[in-house]
Amino acid sequence: MNIEMIRAAQARLEGHARRTPLLNSPFLDEIAGRRVWVKPECLQHTGSFKFRGGWSAVSGLDPEARARGVIAFSSGNHAQGVALAASRHGVRSIIVMPSDAPQSKIDNTRALGAEVVLFDRAKDDRNAICARLSEEHGLTLIVPYDNPLVIAGQGTCGLEIAEQASAEGITKADVLVCCGGGGFTAGVALALEADAPCLRARPVEPEDFDDMARSLASGVIERNSRLSGSLCDAIITPQPGNLTFPIVSRLAGPGLVVTEDEALHAMAHAFSRLKLVAEPGGAVALAAALFHADEIEGEDVIVTISGGNVDADVFRMALDKFGG
Amino acid sequence: MNIEMIRAAQARLEGHARRTPLLNSPFLDEIAGRRVWVKPECLQHTGSFKFRGGWSAVSGLDPEARARGVIAFSSGNHAQGVALAASRHGVRSIIVMPSDAPQSKIDNTRALGAEVVLFDRAKDDRNAICARLSEEHGLTLIVPYDNPLVIAGQGTCGLEIAEQASAEGITKADVLVCCGGGGFTAGVALALEADAPCLRARPVEPEDFDDMARSLASGVIERNSRLSGSLCDAIITPQPGNLTFPIVSRLAGPGLVVTEDEALHAMAHAFSRLKLVAEPGGAVALAAALFHADEIEGEDVIVTISGGNVDADVFRMALDKFGG
Repeated sequence: MNIEMIRAAQARLEGHARRTPLLNSPFLDEIAGRRVWVKPECLQHTGSFKFRGGWSAVSGLDPEARARGVIAFSSGNHAQGVALAASRHGVRSIIVMPSDAPQSKIDNTRALGAEVVLFDRAKDDRNAICARLSEEHGLTLIVPYDNPLVIAGQGTCGLEIAEQASAEGITKADVLVCCGGGGFTAGVALALEADAPCLRARPVEPEDFDDMARSLASGVIERNSRLSGSLCDAIITPQPGNLTFPIVSRLAGPGLVVTEDEALHAMAHAFSRLKLVAEPGGAVALAAALFHADEIEGEDVIVTISGGNVDADVFRMALDKFGG
Repeated sequence: MNIEMIRAAQARLEGHARRTPLLNSPFLDEIAGRRVWVKPECLQHTGSFKFRGGWSAVSGLDPEARARGVIAFSSGNHAQGVALAASRHGVRSIIVMPSDAPQSKIDNTRALGAEVVLFDRAKDDRNAICARLSEEHGLTLIVPYDNPLVIAGQGTCGLEIAEQASAEGITKADVLVCCGGGGFTAGVALALEADAPCLRARPVEPEDFDDMARSLASGVIERNSRLSGSLCDAIITPQPGNLTFPIVSRLAGPGLVVTEDEALHAMAHAFSRLKLVAEPGGAVALAAALFHADEIEGEDVIVTISGGNVDADVFRMALDKFGG
């Protein structure tokens, strides 16, 4: 896993992924006590940064494997990213989703061109289903973060941040990355190491699901005690990846942890000050910038909004609580 | 009023206004039955395209007049655009606002650096207040649309659309513009005439406030019968401008008119498919693309989202009605 893989991914994404802007607002600066720069990956195709990794993985396959198609398991953003990347390449994708996933996510994944195979979380073995389908149809499995091509794709966001920060005259800053399995954080950290060594990636997670922060603190991979019960579901994973953790550990600063209410509050600020729709998991980095200012260094902070795929009822909850 | 004034404004806005992206979604294409391209000016500084006109007007003054400061009357987006443009130039601005304007808008305008002077809609003469303050303090009045520098600033959005459409291979399309007094429509129409004659501006207004559409149909300036009672307040004006109407009349296609519910429905689609916050008046062009497809020609349509300054309760209303 190295910077050349990220640059190669960037070349493959050119003209296909969106180059998202770097936004700011004097109102957010005021709250945070420093300049806050926002990289809104909710504006990426399929509403999250996952399209970068999906496109990178599909486009990076050798032509024969690609022609046979791909398979992925995901109930959320990775599913949509892979589905659209595959259909725009004109190849087949099967997405294995839990049967209790929200109908809207199942519908969206199908509408983006995937065949959806549902499994019962209680009875079925997801990995076995994937393995069987993969073998039967010759499909390449694209796992959500512990995959070099996926990490390389997410890293392209870091290359853009390096370039945009330089254009804004930002010389030193923490770059807060919404963190699940660590693919986004690892990719961004590698990109910054190469192109903006004055910028430091830092993972941000929700309270009670801070496996990466604890793993960074202890130096070994730590697990979450549970995997459900968070509004930040988009970035909940069992533990840091075997491929991502060493990279994050080597390059990133300490993890930050925010409460669910802080994430909802940040969503309300993204609504009123940036006119952006963030999902709870996608708002944790902005929440850290706004409400954990004393844990951050420097006159500037850069935050990712990793996705905006939130149902109306959860968005209403954020506005009810914090929208004024 | 000519294209050179718009190009000069573009040079002055360079590095100060945002170049907003051109977004799309397969889900919107499906509803509209053609490709829908969205120019999200809600992502512009101060949350609306009005910052372009404000910056153009302040930066276009001669240095002596600029140093004395500016004055504007507005209860909404123009106020914020002028306030931020003035404060970033380091000059004074007074914004004359009705005392019953939402507190949040008064607070925001102040926070962006303006002195706010409130007047009583029932008793006071707004124009007399502006004239007195302007004379007392030597301030230049910046009216919201019937001002060549303002129209030139709004036109910079049209230059960007021309360039972005060409990059996307769009050869012929209607460009739907949210229309109040016609400054945005006139500026965009002039820019398209010069840089993309295959693109045609068309104003979009809310039902019962369709003064521009009726004026275009009759060939003379028609007034609205009332000025309040619309959620689309950001784009409600008494009648087309004396400066804007001849331009729109010469260059734009027929006006489109949407219902308030269609605007709210379009807001819900912008939320779920684009992850953008649109205000009701800012969503009328998207509403026309989605729900008045038979009044539009061509395989592509380009729509502006003119602003995103909507209170949480109105946004909730859109999600309650149409957010699923």
